[in-house]
Amino acid sequence: MLCVGLDPDPARFPEVVHGSVFDFCRAIVDATAHAVCAFKPQIAHFAAIGAEPELEQLCTYIREQHPEVLVVLDAKRGDIGSTAEQYAREAFDRYGAHMVTVNPYLGTDSVEPFLRHPSGAVFVLCRTSNPGSGDFQNLLVDGEPLYLHVARRVATEWSEIGECGLVVGATYPDELREVRAIVGDLPLLVPGIGAQGGDVKATVAAGHDSAGFGMVINSSRAVLYASNDADFADAARAVAEATRDEIRTHALR
Amino acid sequence: MLCVGLDPDPARFPEVVHGSVFDFCRAIVDATAHAVCAFKPQIAHFAAIGAEPELEQLCTYIREQHPEVLVVLDAKRGDIGSTAEQYAREAFDRYGAHMVTVNPYLGTDSVEPFLRHPSGAVFVLCRTSNPGSGDFQNLLVDGEPLYLHVARRVATEWSEIGECGLVVGATYPDELREVRAIVGDLPLLVPGIGAQGGDVKATVAAGHDSAGFGMVINSSRAVLYASNDADFADAARAVAEATRDEIRTHALR
Repeated sequence: MLCVGLDPDPARFPEVVHGSVFDFCRAIVDATAHAVCAFKPQIAHFAAIGAEPELEQLCTYIREQHPEVLVVLDAKRGDIGSTAEQYAREAFDRYGAHMVTVNPYLGTDSVEPFLRHPSGAVFVLCRTSNPGSGDFQNLLVDGEPLYLHVARRVATEWSEIGECGLVVGATYPDELREVRAIVGDLPLLVPGIGAQGGDVKATVAAGHDSAGFGMVINSSRAVLYASNDADFADAARAVAEATRDEIRTHALR
Repeated sequence: MLCVGLDPDPARFPEVVHGSVFDFCRAIVDATAHAVCAFKPQIAHFAAIGAEPELEQLCTYIREQHPEVLVVLDAKRGDIGSTAEQYAREAFDRYGAHMVTVNPYLGTDSVEPFLRHPSGAVFVLCRTSNPGSGDFQNLLVDGEPLYLHVARRVATEWSEIGECGLVVGATYPDELREVRAIVGDLPLLVPGIGAQGGDVKATVAAGHDSAGFGMVINSSRAVLYASNDADFADAARAVAEATRDEIRTHALR
């Protein structure tokens, strides 16, 4: 259930990759693919430095070299229908992602083009892992926080249109449990372990589906920057394997 | 107060531009710059076809050739703080936008990096122009729809951090009036006239600030695709001028 987030930051690259975004990411991918179910490239990190060609190359590389691993494009897109169609083309046609993260604020027609795309599937932002996530997500609507209304709509209406999951941060295990109770066995993308401080045991206990699984638990910086020396890929492998084992221990308990 | 949205769709280009995204957009920009206060490139339309280099070129062109016109990058970004920093770099450093549209769902720390950027200013999505916009934006929190809570937070807390405006669709003039009543003289970006059906007179009446202005009223497709023949730039100029005049008439009434 481990996912490694690919958030390349050239300022933190070890010298040995000579600043190459693709070489850095490829080394991480090759070192950790056996321990993960998904890679999650964060598109902002590529867009900030004009590295879209490297992102295309990386997505192709993962699909070809590690076809058993899913590509989750972390883009958090959300726009009116006609524009969402363009974003769906970006995610699925251009980058060949298996899934893309989307923002629910604009409502059903902003998500439909992703769901109706022939190869489309989405993770909808529900309760995010950041400090300000409660500012709007926790506002009470009919006695329930907004994020549970999002969860319910995804689990009912949107799941009938296409393949959906939800994003719920590991930093809030109680909320993770509430969301799981509403969405049945829909998959959950759970960021926030590692550098953001989420606890693996609490996360697995709160978020597993009826079979004990059903989560894609993401760690980015703790894996990517486990070492900033020539051994960075080995260090990433070690952290990824240890995290996978920790998840497995708690999932099988 | 007119803004022309740049949503290039090569399938709708006149033959004379030979499919060039930059040539098409430059012709529209040169034909309409005298009638607008802003251009709003919609990044999805560039990203879907891998045209980021053309978008860079276009933003540079506007800034250099039409320095009196603002560049509003319509990106609707929203992510956790460390990622939002990357998106702020994309919008302001890479593309040199004056303003960028952002999504409020992730809360204060997702918007702060844009507001704190040295050249940063944002339009926060509040009440959008699309059919599904009410799905979550209209949910009642303490007897008031969610979008008014967004408006209030932007007008208070977020405006103290940096320069803010709000996005409110022209397709909902009553909601536009409610938002204006809450946010004082903050600028409003108002999409939805033209192809989306919003009425200019009702929009200006509902959304103007205390001086009778304070809006950036966007039209995209009605201007861009006014003609699909060799006269497309002249046709775009005519629609832009007519729309500007219509806005002016109602603003000065």
